[in-house]
Amino acid sequence: MTTNPSVLVVMGSKSDLPIGEKCLGVLKELGVTYQLMVCSAHRTPEELSALVKGSKAEVFIAIAGLSAALPGAIAAYTLRPVIGVPVSGKLNLDCILAIVQMPPGIPVGAVGLDMGENAGILAAQILAVKDPAIYEKLKAHRTRMKEKVMKDAEELSGKA
Amino acid sequence: MTTNPSVLVVMGSKSDLPIGEKCLGVLKELGVTYQLMVCSAHRTPEELSALVKGSKAEVFIAIAGLSAALPGAIAAYTLRPVIGVPVSGKLNLDCILAIVQMPPGIPVGAVGLDMGENAGILAAQILAVKDPAIYEKLKAHRTRMKEKVMKDAEELSGKA
Amino acid sequence: MTTNPSVLVVMGSKSDLPIGEKCLGVLKELGVTYQLMVCSAHRTPEELSALVKGSKAEVFIAIAGLSAALPGAIAAYTLRPVIGVPVSGKLNLDCILAIVQMPPGIPVGAVGLDMGENAGILAAQILAVKDPAIYEKLKAHRTRMKEKVMKDAEELSGKA
Amino acid sequence: MTTNPSVLVVMGSKSDLPIGEKCLGVLKELGVTYQLMVCSAHRTPEELSALVKGSKAEVFIAIAGLSAALPGAIAAYTLRPVIGVPVSGKLNLDCILAIVQMPPGIPVGAVGLDMGENAGILAAQILAVKDPAIYEKLKAHRTRMKEKVMKDAEELSGKA
Amino acid sequence: MTTNPSVLVVMGSKSDLPIGEKCLGVLKELGVTYQLMVCSAHRTPEELSALVKGSKAEVFIAIAGLSAALPGAIAAYTLRPVIGVPVSGKLNLDCILAIVQMPPGIPVGAVGLDMGENAGILAAQILAVKDPAIYEKLKAHRTRMKEKVMKDAEELSGKA
Amino acid sequence: MTTNPSVLVVMGSKSDLPIGEKCLGVLKELGVTYQLMVCSAHRTPEELSALVKGSKAEVFIAIAGLSAALPGAIAAYTLRPVIGVPVSGKLNLDCILAIVQMPPGIPVGAVGLDMGENAGILAAQILAVKDPAIYEKLKAHRTRMKEKVMKDAEELSGKA
Amino acid sequence: MTTNPSVLVVMGSKSDLPIGEKCLGVLKELGVTYQLMVCSAHRTPEELSALVKGSKAEVFIAIAGLSAALPGAIAAYTLRPVIGVPVSGKLNLDCILAIVQMPPGIPVGAVGLDMGENAGILAAQILAVKDPAIYEKLKAHRTRMKEKVMKDAEELSGKA
Amino acid sequence: MTTNPSVLVVMGSKSDLPIGEKCLGVLKELGVTYQLMVCSAHRTPEELSALVKGSKAEVFIAIAGLSAALPGAIAAYTLRPVIGVPVSGKLNLDCILAIVQMPPGIPVGAVGLDMGENAGILAAQILAVKDPAIYEKLKAHRTRMKEKVMKDAEELSGKA
Repeated sequence: MTTNPSVLVVMGSKSDLPIGEKCLGVLKELGVTYQLMVCSAHRTPEELSALVKGSKAEVFIAIAGLSAALPGAIAAYTLRPVIGVPVSGKLNLDCILAIVQMPPGIPVGAVGLDMGENAGILAAQILAVKDPAIYEKLKAHRTRMKEKVMKDAEELSGKA
Repeated sequence: MTTNPSVLVVMGSKSDLPIGEKCLGVLKELGVTYQLMVCSAHRTPEELSALVKGSKAEVFIAIAGLSAALPGAIAAYTLRPVIGVPVSGKLNLDCILAIVQMPPGIPVGAVGLDMGENAGILAAQILAVKDPAIYEKLKAHRTRMKEKVMKDAEELSGKA
Repeated sequence: MTTNPSVLVVMGSKSDLPIGEKCLGVLKELGVTYQLMVCSAHRTPEELSALVKGSKAEVFIAIAGLSAALPGAIAAYTLRPVIGVPVSGKLNLDCILAIVQMPPGIPVGAVGLDMGENAGILAAQILAVKDPAIYEKLKAHRTRMKEKVMKDAEELSGKA
Repeated sequence: MTTNPSVLVVMGSKSDLPIGEKCLGVLKELGVTYQLMVCSAHRTPEELSALVKGSKAEVFIAIAGLSAALPGAIAAYTLRPVIGVPVSGKLNLDCILAIVQMPPGIPVGAVGLDMGENAGILAAQILAVKDPAIYEKLKAHRTRMKEKVMKDAEELSGKA
Repeated sequence: MTTNPSVLVVMGSKSDLPIGEKCLGVLKELGVTYQLMVCSAHRTPEELSALVKGSKAEVFIAIAGLSAALPGAIAAYTLRPVIGVPVSGKLNLDCILAIVQMPPGIPVGAVGLDMGENAGILAAQILAVKDPAIYEKLKAHRTRMKEKVMKDAEELSGKA
Repeated sequence: MTTNPSVLVVMGSKSDLPIGEKCLGVLKELGVTYQLMVCSAHRTPEELSALVKGSKAEVFIAIAGLSAALPGAIAAYTLRPVIGVPVSGKLNLDCILAIVQMPPGIPVGAVGLDMGENAGILAAQILAVKDPAIYEKLKAHRTRMKEKVMKDAEELSGKA
Repeated sequence: MTTNPSVLVVMGSKSDLPIGEKCLGVLKELGVTYQLMVCSAHRTPEELSALVKGSKAEVFIAIAGLSAALPGAIAAYTLRPVIGVPVSGKLNLDCILAIVQMPPGIPVGAVGLDMGENAGILAAQILAVKDPAIYEKLKAHRTRMKEKVMKDAEELSGKA
Repeated sequence: MTTNPSVLVVMGSKSDLPIGEKCLGVLKELGVTYQLMVCSAHRTPEELSALVKGSKAEVFIAIAGLSAALPGAIAAYTLRPVIGVPVSGKLNLDCILAIVQMPPGIPVGAVGLDMGENAGILAAQILAVKDPAIYEKLKAHRTRMKEKVMKDAEELSGKA
């Protein structure tokens, strides 16, 4: 944790930690400072409001399952970009739709089910709009991904 | 509007008024006092928090479409029963699932899509637990419904 | 079991017991008296009718999967509030929609999939409208939930 | 209406009449006697129970939308075959799943959304198991359908 | 297997056997004669056509997953009632909708996902329209189900 | 209609004609010979079997809604490629899934809802594997599509 | 259109223009420069690649229906944040899921169905991370939304 | 791998290999030459474009899960027939709809979820339009499938 982290990652419940960790891993790799919190839109609404209003984060990531109100609740308290990550459970359509289908005026940018890493990359892309160092790390990150695909292709063609 | 209405009906948007009016019509018929408000979980979160905390209502009804965070946001600020009414749009599964799939600890009682009248009846049933006068009105109301079905049956058998 | 329990919890099948027990656990914690029954809308319709009509319960909770007619069947025989709990299976949308989408006139308040605990809390909230002792227990229960979230947050920030 | 009709067609609401009429039209064409009733599983449960138990019908057809408990409620009161017809509305998956997904022990045979005519044909097929006259009418009916398709094909090939 | 079995149970694939066996178990219990076959609408269409046309069965049960064309393919070759049983897989909505949503003119009566037993009961109910002995067995079967529910209820109330 | 058309387009019902016509329009434009038929997997199964077996078509296109068995039924009678076009109705998921989810061994290539034109293009692409003249027409067709998009872009940039 | 617009809005088809215009309206109101293009991931893939690689935009907005590959295709060619807007059609779940469910490594931030305005606001929020003037406009915009809700509430309470 | 393989099978990720192998197994059995590649529409778009444009394959098979843009991306770069195979994950509807719901002009022929073998057969059927040797192998393959069903039927009738 840094004093003034650029990204505040909030999980609705401690059980969302595996998704949160995928997110933090990517942020670290991309040189983005972050803070991870557990805070619930429904069980601790006042703490959430205080957390968001008091935060100097430039991007928020909210991770939540079921009716997944957390991303929208954060978006209600900030003008900073909010990224929502739906967490898989028994239905999956519930949290995806709850995060995507925000009403006009208060957007959330939804990434895919359990896609903590994509939330991290998107946060870094947002910060890279003003920080060229992050942009360079994104470039290297994408090159690594590309190389990984090409190495997989090569290994396969060796076998097949 | 009464000074200390028993039921506070909150709509997420003025466009939900047709559903709200079905609700108010039933509450009036069942002798339940109410107040109707427009307040948004996302656009006016602080006003919503103040409204709910300041309310002496014994039951809350929240009417909302899309990601439909309103019922849950109200439930986060009160220990009173909260009834949620999903409002139909382009998907319908979005608001139904968002209202039903509340996380453990903070329940909302969901009624059917656009079913403002059922929210009103359920609110009256809750208040009737302590108010026998409302119970009597519910009894009469159900008798009228039953008679309506039987009159429909009779008319039909006359024709068929 | 008490002589005149406030809440009657009905399961459509003995296999719904894990959900029923989550419900009873919460009712006990909140000081609400209850009775647990197995009764089927389809296999024992007359017993169900007799059970509901003969009951002095002030709130009904019905737990059912698949086409989940139980909550509605109970609502057809009582004017008391009925809470429905869908039970997960191979589809999940079946029981959720069957419980939520009640026709006009006979409401059921649906809680989330397998959310026995939320049904218990909602029942307690309804009874608390007339019983301040339950209201106090609800307050304490919510405080404990809030403290749990904050303790989770603290532990996490210690680690992260 | 005949004194001892073979098929009892029950609609959950008068608004289901267009579907009911498609059903009656086919029954008439196939020489099957019938009675059409409006009766609600939720608003008139006792009348429904009395109607079904008192009926000498050999096949029941139940037409219902939304949570569509009617076919199952009828099946709970009779050992005769029950055919369920889901009625289209805002969701459609609700009534289809509610009618199909009956619990073990109490079957309903579901036909397609709004398919009143198919319910009528299936009822006639059931009665034809013991009544060769109906079987002959089914044969003629299918031949007419086949001829209709072939006439359509011919007209089209004339044009194309 | 009997020489002229009343019910022909057809599975689209050998892997559907567990569902087929639930069906046969009930048919045996209800005194209904049957034959079990594997035959595919897509891989052995001519054999299927020959099987259905050559069969003296009075009721057909078709068990199939995925696009589940089998029940409809059988219904295309016979005027006897056809019952369809969707078999669970990765989607479940595919086979349910394929079996329910038959076009006008060629009905199939769909039972629930994997509900081989309900298909057997429905077949017996159809045959009982002309065979009072089967009707008596259905009565006894339902009584046993009812007693089972009541015994479950008793055991539970002993414990709770 | 040509004597030995390369593509046989079959619609399950005359009401599918608008989708069929989009298909024929494209086939004509791409220089592919075709025949259009109405034939039903359920109402005229023997005619369908005869039609498919007797056809010298090299590609089949089947257009059908609801449980949409037509593409699969055709695929059961030929080894030629079969393209399925789902036709929109009240559910849409029914015909899409029925056409896509064919069992192992008998494939159908599904195109999008109501996408008669895409079925035509895919059929032409298949025939172009051996006929360079069709390949040239496909090339021109794609160029026209590309030019249309670019013209739209230009018009827009003129306005915006 | 400005020489170096901050946001590039791309529509997959000219028919998406109503959604595009909602987006442009908001961008204009928030003082964000933009360019609007029609370009198709499938019909003009090379032009899209050239457009994205040649663009100096800091944020991309992609508007598309059906299989909605456009946002992902843009994200494949840039490291800048990409916002995806699903456009309503006959299914709606198709484009929503296609835009949300991006694979690991290449994120798209999805907003709600037809929510062009939310895409515009989210783009402005991203740019406001480095541009305080846009942040001030976002503040004013939210205040206006809040005032609109409160004015609606007031009007309603005057009437109710 | 052959020098000029007829079918190019592309997987979006190495993890799709089990589906790819089902496909290759069938292609081998049907005497079709093939090449298997890993290439990603999102992570290696330029490599994909080069691969497709440089390929002399006559049919393309694309295997992908989640938003499954791969089949459409390939179809954008070739006029050859493209077959898409959705790969099962947490939702399944995402990849099925993304592959089926291609926009007008650029078709993909979708086969069922995880149905690598059906993609292989469909590719062979397409090639058999010009290659009678493959047609003969398809005939033998179908005969084997038919015999397998009939052997299953026989074994079963021995037991039942």
